[in-house]
Amino acid sequence: MFHMSEFEIIERFFKKAYPSSKGDLSLGIGDDAAIINVPEDSELVMSMDTLLAGVHFFEGTSAENIAFKSLAVNLSDIAAMGASPRWISLALTLPEKNLDWIEKFASSFNKLAEQHSLVLIGGDLTKGPLSITVQIHGINPKGKSLRRSGANPGDIICVSGSLGAAAYALKSIEENILYPAATKKEIKQLHRPEARIKTGIALRDVATSCIDISDGLIADLQHILKASQVGAEIELSNIPYSNSLTKLKNEDAIELALAGGDDYELCFTIPNSLTNISLEEIATNCPITKIGFINNKTESLVLRKENEEVYVLKSKSYSHFE
Amino acid sequence: MFHMSEFEIIERFFKKAYPSSKGDLSLGIGDDAAIINVPEDSELVMSMDTLLAGVHFFEGTSAENIAFKSLAVNLSDIAAMGASPRWISLALTLPEKNLDWIEKFASSFNKLAEQHSLVLIGGDLTKGPLSITVQIHGINPKGKSLRRSGANPGDIICVSGSLGAAAYALKSIEENILYPAATKKEIKQLHRPEARIKTGIALRDVATSCIDISDGLIADLQHILKASQVGAEIELSNIPYSNSLTKLKNEDAIELALAGGDDYELCFTIPNSLTNISLEEIATNCPITKIGFINNKTESLVLRKENEEVYVLKSKSYSHFE
Repeated sequence: MFHMSEFEIIERFFKKAYPSSKGDLSLGIGDDAAIINVPEDSELVMSMDTLLAGVHFFEGTSAENIAFKSLAVNLSDIAAMGASPRWISLALTLPEKNLDWIEKFASSFNKLAEQHSLVLIGGDLTKGPLSITVQIHGINPKGKSLRRSGANPGDIICVSGSLGAAAYALKSIEENILYPAATKKEIKQLHRPEARIKTGIALRDVATSCIDISDGLIADLQHILKASQVGAEIELSNIPYSNSLTKLKNEDAIELALAGGDDYELCFTIPNSLTNISLEEIATNCPITKIGFINNKTESLVLRKENEEVYVLKSKSYSHFE
Repeated sequence: MFHMSEFEIIERFFKKAYPSSKGDLSLGIGDDAAIINVPEDSELVMSMDTLLAGVHFFEGTSAENIAFKSLAVNLSDIAAMGASPRWISLALTLPEKNLDWIEKFASSFNKLAEQHSLVLIGGDLTKGPLSITVQIHGINPKGKSLRRSGANPGDIICVSGSLGAAAYALKSIEENILYPAATKKEIKQLHRPEARIKTGIALRDVATSCIDISDGLIADLQHILKASQVGAEIELSNIPYSNSLTKLKNEDAIELALAGGDDYELCFTIPNSLTNISLEEIATNCPITKIGFINNKTESLVLRKENEEVYVLKSKSYSHFE
């Protein structure tokens, strides 16, 4: 057990949990490459994300939480495309061959994968500073994937769920004198975000653009504005602030909800003509809130207070490389 | 220039070098995910490999060489499947925002990608200990991908190119007292292995099994034996030893050629009935050498010396996780 090779570790903790071939999967883990038959009526949607110790999670975060988040952030990208997640590859770099850690990581990773009928089809296990890179593959009916580039003037801007809880939990850990301690539930929202897969799929035939909120609502909405060459106006009073933020001063709450990041909710645009009934159907999966509208002022983003005044955001959005 | 964000770096050094949509590629870098339309008559072949500073290359290796190798080892996996490489994702983790280093890395990476008509479709740029993970996607006509599992008793075992030069270069750097200094050409074989893409494609309709030699001929051939549930006998005198090895004692040469790794040549099996003319056609791309044959002694591997005696390998093969 303590002398397991890379191949034995993959076999024991990962390979066994997944079929070596099934349906569209011709060949899974264990060859030079995996082989997939993408259904003829489908397009392939793929994304890759890396999580690093000390950057994306605190040193000492549990193996289970690291595994969950490394997969969840990738699932969230698939959700933002309106796609169905299907296959994943995992590049896992570990400082030591701690089989207990690996077992916990694999158990959490495999469990979340199973919940989404995802199959692990390959990857790499290497020795070095803790780092997890996941490549995820999803499928969508051809031409149905949601992009950032389809928003039109007049469209309504919506977000799923509520905003700010994960950023609040992070602040309460990082700056525990300034912020009230986060509850277990709030910390869970930081470590175990729920990718909005069902909501994304429900938006396939409805949304004109979509993105997942990883860097903060404002930063991510700006990606939509840039890609669509439009502007936006947001009503601050309409933002679905997380209940966690009621513990904070009003302005701190706004900053965390708008610039905090790590929410992994969806921000999307829908045509003004979409009926409330259609939106209610989509909202059976999770709450949906209308927060503003798209206009033709290219790349301009105005945040409006209740008294009609313009609010100027103080926070810088999260950058992956500063 | 010194205050470029992650997005600006990706835009400047990577995104510009690749089409945002073209042919099968509906959507490239810059959304939550890329979108691909896999041709209907094709299966998708995919693999992922990580390279780490201090593990897969020496600290101080040039950005150009690191970029080349990180892509080449992935191309080699596609070659081993007999597939045509098409799309790649790059997860690049860097300790600092050294734009000079990034420019050199990107230039070398993009150049090799262009040589293989590969399109970069996404990835991630993060700050942390130097690490490069590439996910590569190739395509093959449906059912044509080469696997490790098809070798049959009576098949001939072949290898492309020659073996041992990269391992020799590595040894000459690591143990420069014991080994004569490697030439520039030999060191290039360590840093810039040539993936045998054309040879792999030529083998599609011919080989019964195939693997690329990354961990050493013996270790990798054993993967074929295990997957195919067969045995093998190798004639040591038939091994295509690299010319570099003539500088060494006979036994050192054998060890490096058989267990050294990093060659990225192909080891494959062909039916005994295949004519020498067919094999010569395949060998127009690079030399092909018959080195032994497959038998029915499951997972047994015998190395035979010229005097018929059995040779026992002293080296342990490379392990990614010891």
